[in-house]
Amino acid sequence: MGHRGLGVDPRCRCIETESRRIGKQSVELFPPSSHCKDTDIVATLKISGKEICLDPTAPWVKKVIEKIIANKAP
Amino acid sequence: MGHRGLGVDPRCRCIETESRRIGKQSVELFPPSSHCKDTDIVATLKISGKEICLDPTAPWVKKVIEKIIANKAP
Repeated sequence: MGHRGLGVDPRCRCIETESRRIGKQSVELFPPSSHCKDTDIVATLKISGKEICLDPTAPWVKKVIEKIIANKAP
Repeated sequence: MGHRGLGVDPRCRCIETESRRIGKQSVELFPPSSHCKDTDIVATLKISGKEICLDPTAPWVKKVIEKIIANKAP
């Protein structure tokens, strides 16, 4: 939800975040930068390819990312 | 290094990983799947836009990701 185009928009990528939990998806992390003070986390849903923004402060989001790094199915 | 095209290649995205440390970059995490048993981590370098693969087992890679999630400059 609220995912803006990548790269060219001089603002944050995410304007709102998805509160429903997602499972094992690819996740892209964008660190804070000069045009966005927040970390943006964008997940790509496996079947639809749809991109959704996740809340970097939500504990379940951190757990999903930690599980991906640990090479486990979330 | 060794970054393959996204999505359509039925293998792992990363065939080798970069050992030099990178700083504050956007990072994409791909969990293990039916066509790749490993987690792939692809960083996009800020200036060149070049994509490089990172070693998901390297402690510094985990730290960079943790710092991005924590909304801190790595």
